[in-house]
Amino acid sequence: MKETPVLFTSSEYAERLANVRRRMEAMGLSALLVTDPANLNYLTGYNAWSFYTPQVLFVPLEGDMLFFLRAMDAQGAFRTAWLPPDTMIGYPESFVHRSHLHPFAWVAGALRERGRVEPNRVGLEMDSQFFSPKAYRSLQTGLPEWDFVDADELVNWVRVTKSAAELDQMRQAALVCESAMTAAVENVQVGVRQCDAAAAISHAQISGTPAAGGDYPAIVPMLPTGEAADTPHLTWNDQPFEAGQAVVVELAGAYHRYHVPMARTIVLGTPSTELAGLADAINDGLSAVLDLVRPGVATRDLAEAWTRTLADYGLEKPSRIGYSIGLAYPPDWGERTVSLRTEDDTILEENMTFHLIGGMWMENFGCELSEAIRVTASGVETFTNFPRRLLTSS
Amino acid sequence: MKETPVLFTSSEYAERLANVRRRMEAMGLSALLVTDPANLNYLTGYNAWSFYTPQVLFVPLEGDMLFFLRAMDAQGAFRTAWLPPDTMIGYPESFVHRSHLHPFAWVAGALRERGRVEPNRVGLEMDSQFFSPKAYRSLQTGLPEWDFVDADELVNWVRVTKSAAELDQMRQAALVCESAMTAAVENVQVGVRQCDAAAAISHAQISGTPAAGGDYPAIVPMLPTGEAADTPHLTWNDQPFEAGQAVVVELAGAYHRYHVPMARTIVLGTPSTELAGLADAINDGLSAVLDLVRPGVATRDLAEAWTRTLADYGLEKPSRIGYSIGLAYPPDWGERTVSLRTEDDTILEENMTFHLIGGMWMENFGCELSEAIRVTASGVETFTNFPRRLLTSS
Repeated sequence: MKETPVLFTSSEYAERLANVRRRMEAMGLSALLVTDPANLNYLTGYNAWSFYTPQVLFVPLEGDMLFFLRAMDAQGAFRTAWLPPDTMIGYPESFVHRSHLHPFAWVAGALRERGRVEPNRVGLEMDSQFFSPKAYRSLQTGLPEWDFVDADELVNWVRVTKSAAELDQMRQAALVCESAMTAAVENVQVGVRQCDAAAAISHAQISGTPAAGGDYPAIVPMLPTGEAADTPHLTWNDQPFEAGQAVVVELAGAYHRYHVPMARTIVLGTPSTELAGLADAINDGLSAVLDLVRPGVATRDLAEAWTRTLADYGLEKPSRIGYSIGLAYPPDWGERTVSLRTEDDTILEENMTFHLIGGMWMENFGCELSEAIRVTASGVETFTNFPRRLLTSS
Repeated sequence: MKETPVLFTSSEYAERLANVRRRMEAMGLSALLVTDPANLNYLTGYNAWSFYTPQVLFVPLEGDMLFFLRAMDAQGAFRTAWLPPDTMIGYPESFVHRSHLHPFAWVAGALRERGRVEPNRVGLEMDSQFFSPKAYRSLQTGLPEWDFVDADELVNWVRVTKSAAELDQMRQAALVCESAMTAAVENVQVGVRQCDAAAAISHAQISGTPAAGGDYPAIVPMLPTGEAADTPHLTWNDQPFEAGQAVVVELAGAYHRYHVPMARTIVLGTPSTELAGLADAINDGLSAVLDLVRPGVATRDLAEAWTRTLADYGLEKPSRIGYSIGLAYPPDWGERTVSLRTEDDTILEENMTFHLIGGMWMENFGCELSEAIRVTASGVETFTNFPRRLLTSS
């Protein structure tokens, strides 16, 4: 009856946990409380759309992990998570969406009952998306003997270099990504409603390929159109595309929660001189960066190569040109660790994976082109194989 | 060039703000900091997938609101938000995803520069999904003269009763919802991969109707299948449906971010006696509740009618049987205010809207049926018109 998750071997999960514990030890932590859904999945395999109610994984330096989630979700957690059933513990429904109660008050009591609360230095993910100040205060109140410290993105940093099995997931996601961008090119056409193009993209993302069914991406398709393409995060409306418009399409393929994103700009007709020039600049900038990628190179050197190339065109871009990618849940497919920018301190290592994205948002127009990449032993691999230039439709 | 949002009149937005300020005054607040994306949209019209980086709306008891968001998003915020451009303020890219910095430290400084930080009692949404403990601490550190209090779900509670214009959005969302459930019935068939059925549902959700393009729902289609239907929040995999399986489908139609959800259970063949009986019990329970709905009735009376009816079948359900619905962003289409359960204190009022959901998760099977409803002047309106019983496919 118990379906053992087969996505990764038990030795891979053991290695992930060992890597997390090594970092915990270096920070002097005796336990870590994990709330980020991607980190929960990374350590346990757990996968469900249950993160809108509080969930937390107690990771001690030694001994069994304990996973606390809503009772109705705990009941079926064994269907995706490999943890022993008696370590996946449901909190009562009466703690859900109550103004004067929080599920983590119950969790504090449950940890106490199980004798897991000796005075400790315990790490929290203080900037995790689904960990609220109220949740934090419930832990402080319920566990006064604990000294809470910000563990920053401890598990996220373990996730930065990918295993061979993770790269297999991403290569499937790349095929889904290509299929979704093909759907975009076929459907972003004059007279088609934006929502119908988005629907076709979403269909391709979720259907996936014959060999690999798609998963929902952490971000819906974004397609800022025409003058609105000067800002990156607009979704669609129900207006038809018009001749002459340029449409910035940013999407991802996802497979078993692993993501490979891609951005392209589709022109409905002939691009303006300004847009064509901007696309050339971005493409040259991306090429300059790709030429440099290999282990041992600093991320800031990549950012500087970009900046120098753009300067040749009289352009500058204030935002980062890429970020670490992999396992993700809404609302973001970035891993919140390495950013490709001058303020970053990372040195590239083999099997780091990034979305290298050149996005320029001017006044009343914009352009994005990107590549999802892996750092190889001696250079770079691009996950997708899709023309990297302005695409034209009609 | 400035596209004025036309979804709601300026007098409707003014009334929303006045209602929020009345509650602020009752709590003794001189300002409120709003971070929930649905609340931001409710007060400003702002709509973009930008909530994965911190955003906050400063709502003083008097004077202009100020909206702080990432610079690249602030640049285009005028395309969906009605606020004066000089009140939508971008924080620098150098504050995004940095371990030792948080954008709200910058926001604190920006409020100070603008002379908006006299000693104050200021409300926070302490359990908002995208408001982290780190964000909270950045505000505490940057604004020591402020006395922060938990405003609970202050704006969410204003949203509980819907205006006529909001109900218009929900009626469009209901048509999208019916179309999506039709796609589910047509595609949940023996031999079809779960992912392909989910893709068809998503296509219908986003494409919408000829008159009203669909929006992305706050939750992806959920379709726990076969034995896994004993837990509610599993998404799809790429296995084909098998004869004899029952599939619990929960989805929503969304229009301009307003949601109308629906749950149905589709049987691939002849239902088991247990499942058929469970569906009858749920349906009778829902009917008993619907018969009672009208202004002045307590939500706990609805829950008790449900419990009594289920008891006649020898069944009980520990979770709530419904919740307030309307404007929503991922990860939840519930409004986090009224729950239909015995612990709730709400008295029904006209134009409250709920998802009344009978979900029963047994061992190795489950069943869900639901109605999205509006409390009318004298009774109840169901938003959708779709057979409420076990559906069969082949």
